Amino acid sequence: MSKDKLVVQVNGAIEELDKTINIFVERIREWYSLHFPEMDRIISNHEKYLKLIRDFGSREKINEKDLVEFKDKSMGMDLSDEDIKPIQEFAIAILKLYEVREELSKYLEKLLKEIAPNFSELATPTLTAKFISKAGSLEKLAKMPSSTIQLLGSEKSLFRFLHGKGKSPKYGLLFQHPYVQKAPAKLRGKVARHLAAKLSMAAKIDFYSKEYKADKLKKDLEEEIKKISKEK
Amino acid sequence: MSKDKLVVQVNGAIEELDKTINIFVERIREWYSLHFPEMDRIISNHEKYLKLIRDFGSREKINEKDLVEFKDKSMGMDLSDEDIKPIQEFAIAILKLYEVREELSKYLEKLLKEIAPNFSELATPTLTAKFISKAGSLEKLAKMPSSTIQLLGSEKSLFRFLHGKGKSPKYGLLFQHPYVQKAPAKLRGKVARHLAAKLSMAAKIDFYSKEYKADKLKKDLEEEIKKISKEK
Repeated sequence: MSKDKLVVQVNGAIEELDKTINIFVERIREWYSLHFPEMDRIISNHEKYLKLIRDFGSREKINEKDLVEFKDKSMGMDLSDEDIKPIQEFAIAILKLYEVREELSKYLEKLLKEIAPNFSELATPTLTAKFISKAGSLEKLAKMPSSTIQLLGSEKSLFRFLHGKGKSPKYGLLFQHPYVQKAPAKLRGKVARHLAAKLSMAAKIDFYSKEYKADKLKKDLEEEIKKISKEK
Repeated sequence: MSKDKLVVQVNGAIEELDKTINIFVERIREWYSLHFPEMDRIISNHEKYLKLIRDFGSREKINEKDLVEFKDKSMGMDLSDEDIKPIQEFAIAILKLYEVREELSKYLEKLLKEIAPNFSELATPTLTAKFISKAGSLEKLAKMPSSTIQLLGSEKSLFRFLHGKGKSPKYGLLFQHPYVQKAPAKLRGKVARHLAAKLSMAAKIDFYSKEYKADKLKKDLEEEIKKISKEK
């Protein structure tokens, strides 16, 4: 059984959930702001904002210290319970999406530790899911040369470069990796190259044996990065 | 209080829910098809498909007469309960979105009967919501000339026409109206013009007095349409 197909689906579902949650949160903030515009900028945390609507409904009932002073002099229009209820239903549905996102994300992490223990230790589970999704399967990832792994996800700028526009890309998805992020701009390309070499090994081990070698790979990689930094 | 602002929000939420439900249903069908690909084409109704996943989980447990013969010889991969549970959670969340969509849609209908009784009787509540959203408010809609109402929602093709490409549009949103739909292609433009004239009156009555005149408007319109058909 190729569980990496599950990874692709779960990762896709999580990405779609993220987009949807963003759109819905924006919508409910605009909608509820007809009634209580002051709350929009005071409660910046989305889940908190949603829970206040779910738990209290109309602004008169909201029992949150930061908001008390705005309740009575709000510029928003009054809404009847009948107009508030649909907003509450919508808030509950969005909170449910947050919950599912959280569960899928835990499940994905578990899946990845099982099918790609080395790669996910080196690249974080989120990034591993993206690599497998982009490659199409763990097998394809395992068979990729390290240089392809380094550039995976940079297709657009690579294409542009091959047509004579822009610079040659130095990393794709790997740009999101903490090691690349932490490196000084000048060294990022080099760090990405070394990182890709180790990830390529990790993918091969994960696909062919699953033996756990991530600690060793990580240690080696950190030493290589130290060396690069000194060479400068 | 201008309740038409609520219409714009509810209508926006419903449109976003529709898009999201489509994306999520496509995703879960792809995902669950790893396990039970045969079910995808047999159960074409989305809500039924989701409820089967919610109620039974793995294909072995599904108790649906049309599927029994496919269960044992399925080409799908086996999944443990641990792999099935996240799919079920996702199905439950999507069903919740269907539920909210239904509630918002009832609420919208009620809102429209209240704020635009004449327009929504003539144009169906769904279309009325789109008109108000597109115009920005009932007031703006009431102040529009009938020709603008006729073309509302055709901005793209109007723009193209004004730049010398394509034909001048004869209707925008009104294309979705049953009267325009039912008319023979040749007469659609004329029907749309008469319909727009009546809708323009309806919007004015709704905004300025709310007196109920829809039945009279409808009767007049139907007679006009009969006349047009005979002229041909």
